[in-house]
Amino acid sequence: MIFVHPTEENLIWNRLKMKVSAVESGETSEKAAPRKGLIRGLSILDFILRIVAAIGTLGSALTMGTTRETLPFATQFVRFRAVFKDLPTFVYFVTSNSIVCVYLVLSLVLSFFHIVRSAAVKSRVLLVFLDTVMFGLLTTGAAAAASIVYVAHYGNSSANWFPFCRQYNNFCERISGSLIGSFIAVVLFIILIFMSAISISKH
Amino acid sequence: MIFVHPTEENLIWNRLKMKVSAVESGETSEKAAPRKGLIRGLSILDFILRIVAAIGTLGSALTMGTTRETLPFATQFVRFRAVFKDLPTFVYFVTSNSIVCVYLVLSLVLSFFHIVRSAAVKSRVLLVFLDTVMFGLLTTGAAAAASIVYVAHYGNSSANWFPFCRQYNNFCERISGSLIGSFIAVVLFIILIFMSAISISKH
Repeated sequence: MIFVHPTEENLIWNRLKMKVSAVESGETSEKAAPRKGLIRGLSILDFILRIVAAIGTLGSALTMGTTRETLPFATQFVRFRAVFKDLPTFVYFVTSNSIVCVYLVLSLVLSFFHIVRSAAVKSRVLLVFLDTVMFGLLTTGAAAAASIVYVAHYGNSSANWFPFCRQYNNFCERISGSLIGSFIAVVLFIILIFMSAISISKH
Repeated sequence: MIFVHPTEENLIWNRLKMKVSAVESGETSEKAAPRKGLIRGLSILDFILRIVAAIGTLGSALTMGTTRETLPFATQFVRFRAVFKDLPTFVYFVTSNSIVCVYLVLSLVLSFFHIVRSAAVKSRVLLVFLDTVMFGLLTTGAAAAASIVYVAHYGNSSANWFPFCRQYNNFCERISGSLIGSFIAVVLFIILIFMSAISISKH
């Protein structure tokens, strides 16, 4: 038999209850603060990288979409003129970059929501899925265009494909340049998906 | 003043302590079991899909890598012959598919580890990163090859590129077919990354 003062007993009970509820809601004071800080930091970086990637894809789509060159000579019947629309792959490149750009701008809403609410998990998983699909779309566009640009530059003697870059110099420089923004966005997507996975794992 | 029997007091203490430690280690009996089952199920599916994807990329690499056609006629000086090596993009396609195939086989070790140890999180995050990079590599190869196959089939009148599929029929059918395995693997990669994200979120 021991004597416990009622107020003392209540104190012990209440402390233990607090500890239980604190642990249940995942707020162990030692770990929660730096974790939450890390997740918020990643969310802010996510937001910034999305803006950069959106600018990259927009730049690619605009540069490719406005490329045209007319050679300064013509015969009576033919005017030598190159537009990006002449090659279906470039049309696909512009389309895929535009779609991904719109997606990136829309995803900023979700990204901002993640900065405000660090605890959100399901929406992050959704974002990983959408990011992966868009990453695939962007990569196909960029790779397909790059392979055509390669043929345009070097041609292919076996297939008898002539490198039209020898005539259309400006046109070729511009389409080559337009790939850069797209490939930057591709690399950023890898980083975005990786960062999302880290954020999710820290919950 | 109230009287608490020492054994009774100990009992209360111990129960509360058990609850605290149970919650701390995340083993609330109601939630842990189905979660662990879900994670294990996803891990097993992950393992199977990796094998399917590896077979797809292997098939693609082998089909493309062994494609050659010699036309049944020849002039005195020229024998009409098409090998996949004639087009650098196809060499890249075979290389990227081979690399991804080897990666997928190696990743089976990690995937098997995840079936055995459902609690592993860091290795899953690493796997998401590696998967994303390999997904990118595979997609560039598949998309680049597809865009060249398109030109081989339809040519391009603006660029004066002749569709060599008109002569090399078998060659073209085979390179077109070899893309299938690669694109199946691309889709599987999206599913794999999504499943990994779900697994990580359930911890």
